[in-house]
Amino acid sequence: MTHRFHDLLALESLSADELTFLLDQSKPFQEIQKHPLKKLATLRGKTVALAFFESSTRTRISFGTAASRLGADIMNLQAEASSLKKGESLLDTVHTLNAMKPDCLVVRHAASGAADFVARHLDIPVINAGDGTHEHPSQGLLDALTIRDRKGKINNWNVTILGDIRHSRVARSDIHLLGKFGCRLTLCGPAMWVPRELEQIAPQAAIRRVFNVEEALDGADVVIVLRVQTERLHEPALSASDYVLLYQLNGERLRRANRDAIVLHPGPMNRGIEISPEVADGPQSCVLEQVTNGIAVRMALLFLLCAGHDEEGAHPSSEAQQPVNRRAADVKDPSHASR
Amino acid sequence: MTHRFHDLLALESLSADELTFLLDQSKPFQEIQKHPLKKLATLRGKTVALAFFESSTRTRISFGTAASRLGADIMNLQAEASSLKKGESLLDTVHTLNAMKPDCLVVRHAASGAADFVARHLDIPVINAGDGTHEHPSQGLLDALTIRDRKGKINNWNVTILGDIRHSRVARSDIHLLGKFGCRLTLCGPAMWVPRELEQIAPQAAIRRVFNVEEALDGADVVIVLRVQTERLHEPALSASDYVLLYQLNGERLRRANRDAIVLHPGPMNRGIEISPEVADGPQSCVLEQVTNGIAVRMALLFLLCAGHDEEGAHPSSEAQQPVNRRAADVKDPSHASR
Amino acid sequence: MTHRFHDLLALESLSADELTFLLDQSKPFQEIQKHPLKKLATLRGKTVALAFFESSTRTRISFGTAASRLGADIMNLQAEASSLKKGESLLDTVHTLNAMKPDCLVVRHAASGAADFVARHLDIPVINAGDGTHEHPSQGLLDALTIRDRKGKINNWNVTILGDIRHSRVARSDIHLLGKFGCRLTLCGPAMWVPRELEQIAPQAAIRRVFNVEEALDGADVVIVLRVQTERLHEPALSASDYVLLYQLNGERLRRANRDAIVLHPGPMNRGIEISPEVADGPQSCVLEQVTNGIAVRMALLFLLCAGHDEEGAHPSSEAQQPVNRRAADVKDPSHASR
Repeated sequence: MTHRFHDLLALESLSADELTFLLDQSKPFQEIQKHPLKKLATLRGKTVALAFFESSTRTRISFGTAASRLGADIMNLQAEASSLKKGESLLDTVHTLNAMKPDCLVVRHAASGAADFVARHLDIPVINAGDGTHEHPSQGLLDALTIRDRKGKINNWNVTILGDIRHSRVARSDIHLLGKFGCRLTLCGPAMWVPRELEQIAPQAAIRRVFNVEEALDGADVVIVLRVQTERLHEPALSASDYVLLYQLNGERLRRANRDAIVLHPGPMNRGIEISPEVADGPQSCVLEQVTNGIAVRMALLFLLCAGHDEEGAHPSSEAQQPVNRRAADVKDPSHASR
Repeated sequence: MTHRFHDLLALESLSADELTFLLDQSKPFQEIQKHPLKKLATLRGKTVALAFFESSTRTRISFGTAASRLGADIMNLQAEASSLKKGESLLDTVHTLNAMKPDCLVVRHAASGAADFVARHLDIPVINAGDGTHEHPSQGLLDALTIRDRKGKINNWNVTILGDIRHSRVARSDIHLLGKFGCRLTLCGPAMWVPRELEQIAPQAAIRRVFNVEEALDGADVVIVLRVQTERLHEPALSASDYVLLYQLNGERLRRANRDAIVLHPGPMNRGIEISPEVADGPQSCVLEQVTNGIAVRMALLFLLCAGHDEEGAHPSSEAQQPVNRRAADVKDPSHASR
Repeated sequence: MTHRFHDLLALESLSADELTFLLDQSKPFQEIQKHPLKKLATLRGKTVALAFFESSTRTRISFGTAASRLGADIMNLQAEASSLKKGESLLDTVHTLNAMKPDCLVVRHAASGAADFVARHLDIPVINAGDGTHEHPSQGLLDALTIRDRKGKINNWNVTILGDIRHSRVARSDIHLLGKFGCRLTLCGPAMWVPRELEQIAPQAAIRRVFNVEEALDGADVVIVLRVQTERLHEPALSASDYVLLYQLNGERLRRANRDAIVLHPGPMNRGIEISPEVADGPQSCVLEQVTNGIAVRMALLFLLCAGHDEEGAHPSSEAQQPVNRRAADVKDPSHASR
C-alpha cells in the first residue's frame, strides 16, 4: 500500500487505514529506542525547524530528539525569544524560517487553525505540534500506539476521557482517532468542560457525556486523564478540592473500570489533582510508555514527511489551495534506513 | 587573488575588492541552499560560539544554521540566560567562552564598538553580528548579494534608504558597502532620524538627505526600508499614523522609483507601518531572498574565518593591537569543500 | 586498576585513589582541547540530557560542549522553559526525560540532595552539576586538575578558601577532595559565612577557620576565591564596601601567600568585589585554565559513565537502593577512542 502524506495537521481527516499505516510505520522506530545506539543517518543533511509560539518542554524536546536520532539538524525558534515580540506576524515569521530552507516545519501555536494556516502558505511539510484547542495529532498517534501495544489492538474499546475536554486538543485528536476504530467514547468532567457540542465532533463515533465519574468509569478499558489547568480552578465555581473530590482518578475509582484497564495522561501531571499518585505510578499507568512512544511516532512522521522528497529531486510546487492533509511524497519502509 | 581575513567587524574598512571577494565566496554557498542535502563536512570538529547579548531570532538562527550546514558544533550563549545577569563583565564572559576553545566567536551586543573590543582581546576570529548603532556587516553583505543577483551588478545604482537611519547599524553597513561601489545614496526619514552627520560617514560616497519621500524615491533603483522601532513613535513628535502618512513605502510611492526597482527590508517587518503589505509581498520585494542569502553569506564567512586555520597548525599568537579587520588566514576555494 | 563508576554525585564518598583515577582520565581530554579538530566519535549515537532547574551559563555550555566533542546529542531542559512552571514534580520531569531514553542525565537543582534523589530513581548514570549548597563535584575535579597541573602535584598544599563558604557547593566539593590528599584547609570570610560546623564536614581533613584575611593567606599555596552573591551583601551587617575592605583578594594581600601561590575562582567573577582586577588578570590567576579544564573533566566523566555500557549490551537493572556513587560500568582507556 502506497501512502502519500505531505503534512500532518489533524487526525480528523485521516481514514482508519491511514492511521493504521502511521502506527505501523512507528513500530521500527519503537525498536530503535531499545538499541544502545539510537541514531540513524536517514535525515542527515536535512533540517527540521521547530517553531514553538507557545511554551513547551516535553513536546519540543521530543520532536528535537526524534530529529536528532534521524540525523537531522534543528532550527529552534521559541516564542519567548522570537521576533513576535517585535510585532512580526506569524506568517512573516514562518516565511522567514522557510527562507532558511528547512525540510520540514513543526509548529505549535495558541490559535486553533494556526498549523493549517501555516501549511496553506508553505511548500514544505508542516507538522502540527498543537494548535489552540483544535488538535495535537502526534499526541493522538502516540496514545493510540500505546493502547495498541498494551491492549493488543486499537479497535472497539470503551474509552473514558476525564477532565477539561473543552479546552483539550489532546482529547480532540484522541476522539477523532479512536472514533474511527469503533471505540465507544465516554466524556466526563465538570459540565462547563464537557459541552454538548462535543458529542457531534466526530459524527461516525459513539460519544456520550457522563457527569458522574464512577458511572463514567464503569466498564472502561482505557482511561485518558487530562491535565487540569489549575488556573481554571477557582471558587466558587470549582475549587481544586472540589475537583479532587468529584473527578480525580484515584485507585478506588479506577476499580470501577475493567480489571485490565489502562490509564493514559499526556503530561505534565498535577499529582494529587486530576490523578492520584497511586494511579500515576501504578501498574495500569502508561504515562512513561507514552513518552517513549512519542519519540517513535515523531521519528516516523519526520521520516515519512522529510525523507520521501529526495527521490523527486526537488520540493513540489506551491499547493496553497490543497486540503488539510496534502499528500505528495512516496513513503518507503524505514526499516531499510541506513544506520 | 589571495585574501587574508581574520575577523569581520565592519564593512567600513574593507575595499571594494575585498567586498567583491566576500560576495564571490558566497556564491557556491548559495547553490548549496538549492540542494536536497545542504550539509557539508567542511567545519566538522570545529565549534562556533554564538554570543548574543541582545535578543535576536533571525540572525541567531541564521548563523546557527550556517554553522550546522558546514558541519560545525555550536556553543549558544544568550544574554537572557547568561552570567551577565550575575554581574560578570562582557570581557570575562567572552574570555570564559574562549577558554572552552571555540574556533570562532559571533557576537551581538547593544554597545557600538563591542565587537571590536572583543576582537582586540581574543585570538580567535570574531564576527560582528550587530553592535549597537555601529555596523551589522553580514547584513550589509547579504543585502549587496541580493542586489547583485537581482540587478546583475552592484555598481552605480541609485539607492534610497528609508526610515530611522540614525539608529540603524544595517543602514551604516549598507552605506559603507554601497558607497564603495559608486552607488548614490539618498537617505530619507523624519529629520531627527536623518541627522546631517550621516552625509559624512562614508567620505568617498555620494550621500544626500531628502525629507520628502516621493522626491527621495524618484529614479531609485534600490529601496532599502528600515524597521521602525515602534517604541520610538509617539505623540506629539511623530505618531504611528503620521509615520504611515509621511514615510510608509506603499505601492503608489514605489511607482516613483524606476520600473525595475527592488525593495529590501532587514526584517522583522512591521507590516502596515514602514511598509505596506502590497509592497512587502509584491514582485519587487526581496525580503525572503535576503533571508536565504543570509545563510549563504554566513556560511562563506564561517568557512573563510574558521577553515583556513588548519593549514597553519595552530591559532596565530595574540594580536591584541591589530586594526579592526585583522588578516591571518589564507582562504581557499569553498567549492572544493568535502560534502 | 579497574574502576566502576555508575554516577558522579559527590566527591565526599570517593577515595583518593578514585579521585586520582578521575583526574588521570581527564588528561587525554585535556590534550584534545589543543587539537585543531576537537571532536571524537566516542559517544556518537548517544544522548546526554542536561536538566538544569537553576539558571546556569558556563556549566551548561561546558557540559554541552563536552558532550558535542564526544559526538553525543543533547537534550536540553532549562527550568525557565520547563513543565515545572506548570507544577510538575522534579521526579516526574526527570522520569519523563528518562523515558525519552537518554544515556546519561546531568542535573542541576537548587535543593541540596536533588542529584542523589534523582539517581535513586533512575537507572541511567546521573552527574550532579550542582545541588543547592551540597556539592558540585565536576567543579571540584576541575579545580584539582588545575592545581595538579600548575603545582605539579595535588598533595599536601596549604589551601585557603575565601568568601561565602556556608552557601558554596564549590567549597564543599573542594574541601572533600583536597582533604583526602592531605591538604591543610583554611576557611576565611565573614563569621556568618564560615560557621563552626564546616570544621567537621570532612573528618579526616585538617580544617581551620581564620577570620583575618592576611593571617588566612600567610603561607598559602593555593587560594580559592568564591563568588559573593551581592544580594547577600547589605547594610548594616555587611556592605559591599565593607567586604572589599575586609575580604577582597587584592595584590597586596596575595603577597602574604607563598610566592608561587595560585588563585582559583569558579566564576563568574565580581571584579572589584571579591577579587581585584590585578589579581584576576595576574600571572597567578588560573581562572581561564579552570574553564578549559572543565571541558576535559566533563568529557572524561561523560566518557566513563556513558561509553562503558555498550559492552554490557544493555543498562543495568534498577538499583534504586544503591549508595551515592553506584558503580556499574567498566572503564576503558579514552586514548583509544576513535577520532
